Amino acid sequence: MSLVRVHNFSISLDGFGTGEGQSLDAPFGHDGHRLLSWALPTRTFTRMGFHGDQGDGEVGVDEAFASRWNTGIGAEIMGRHKFAPASGPWPDDAWRGWWGDTPPFGTPVVVLTSQPRPPLETGGGTTFHFMDAEPVEALERARELAGGLDVRIGGGTTTVRQFLQADLIDELHVVVVPILLGRGERLWDGLEGLEQRFDIEQTPSPSGVVHLTLTRRRDG
Amino acid sequence: MSLVRVHNFSISLDGFGTGEGQSLDAPFGHDGHRLLSWALPTRTFTRMGFHGDQGDGEVGVDEAFASRWNTGIGAEIMGRHKFAPASGPWPDDAWRGWWGDTPPFGTPVVVLTSQPRPPLETGGGTTFHFMDAEPVEALERARELAGGLDVRIGGGTTTVRQFLQADLIDELHVVVVPILLGRGERLWDGLEGLEQRFDIEQTPSPSGVVHLTLTRRRDG
Repeated sequence: MSLVRVHNFSISLDGFGTGEGQSLDAPFGHDGHRLLSWALPTRTFTRMGFHGDQGDGEVGVDEAFASRWNTGIGAEIMGRHKFAPASGPWPDDAWRGWWGDTPPFGTPVVVLTSQPRPPLETGGGTTFHFMDAEPVEALERARELAGGLDVRIGGGTTTVRQFLQADLIDELHVVVVPILLGRGERLWDGLEGLEQRFDIEQTPSPSGVVHLTLTRRRDG
Repeated sequence: MSLVRVHNFSISLDGFGTGEGQSLDAPFGHDGHRLLSWALPTRTFTRMGFHGDQGDGEVGVDEAFASRWNTGIGAEIMGRHKFAPASGPWPDDAWRGWWGDTPPFGTPVVVLTSQPRPPLETGGGTTFHFMDAEPVEALERARELAGGLDVRIGGGTTTVRQFLQADLIDELHVVVVPILLGRGERLWDGLEGLEQRFDIEQTPSPSGVVHLTLTRRRDG
């Protein structure tokens, strides 16, 4: 069976995966852009080209983790807020995601929303499929789209937490960034005893973050 | 000036320093005893003798951190609940702390409580002084008692958080234990931006925990 994986999911020391007040200018909420500062210098993120040509990027433990995000992945599932800043009915079909004409995914992406709309094809092989569904159904659809490859749960915080609560995740890579956001959305809420289902490893990086990997136990 | 330090303060991955429902049988609340499992095998904790003669204990990174707790310390400040399980008026003076006849501190200890009572002398040089005071006053008193040595903030969670919020702490050693308690008291609540005043280092241990040290910045 294909695996369900989470990669490069950054949280603050106090557990917030998103700050308060997400908006067009602040996709990760107040101060949330700092959650990504460990990732931007890596080769993987550098070559995504969000900031123009920045050279080859760093290779080290951060890159080792970052680079796994899209290997063997056949589809992603994301929450509405990873796709667009606003909630509620779509004002029109003009919004095509945060990523410009060529999103980095290169696979089908299932967007969870109470406001389904027709699929949206973009450059580079990414097609967004909009679905009003519970985690189990969404995963079923994503697996169909993934053609036997793994499915990534792409975020945001609420979406990852819901899939954890539904016990649908096999591998979870979380990056603990040494900042305190104080408010926003917490990843770990309502997950008492989660460690009983996972092996947990903690690896520090010279960049100051700690990479946390949770791998589902075979006997779990 | 003497420093104000916190040592061996364990929290769960989801940030709880104490579980829910502290009682005589569960001094750290539900499942909270698991927060200390990294510490018990160390030489420092083994030699405290809580569990009878257990040999010499382990030496490694956990011991390196654990052993600093009482070096150069002249007094401790603790909250009422680190001293006793119940709140409210003391039923009598029979309760002498969790630690038996010879508490491991060997210094004066200021116990913060809304119910002051006369000082309590115990074996091994530990005297408990009961005080109804804000952090600043309590620290002033502890410094008098410490004779120029450092002051340790001994916990529990609320007490450490209050001293952090009052910006009275110079060194904070936190141990992140890979379990999810789900409920209880959070260490980091209301501390947005704390990282701006501290250098933060994260060191993993083969035992599975991560040692987090926050050291006040000289320019901070």
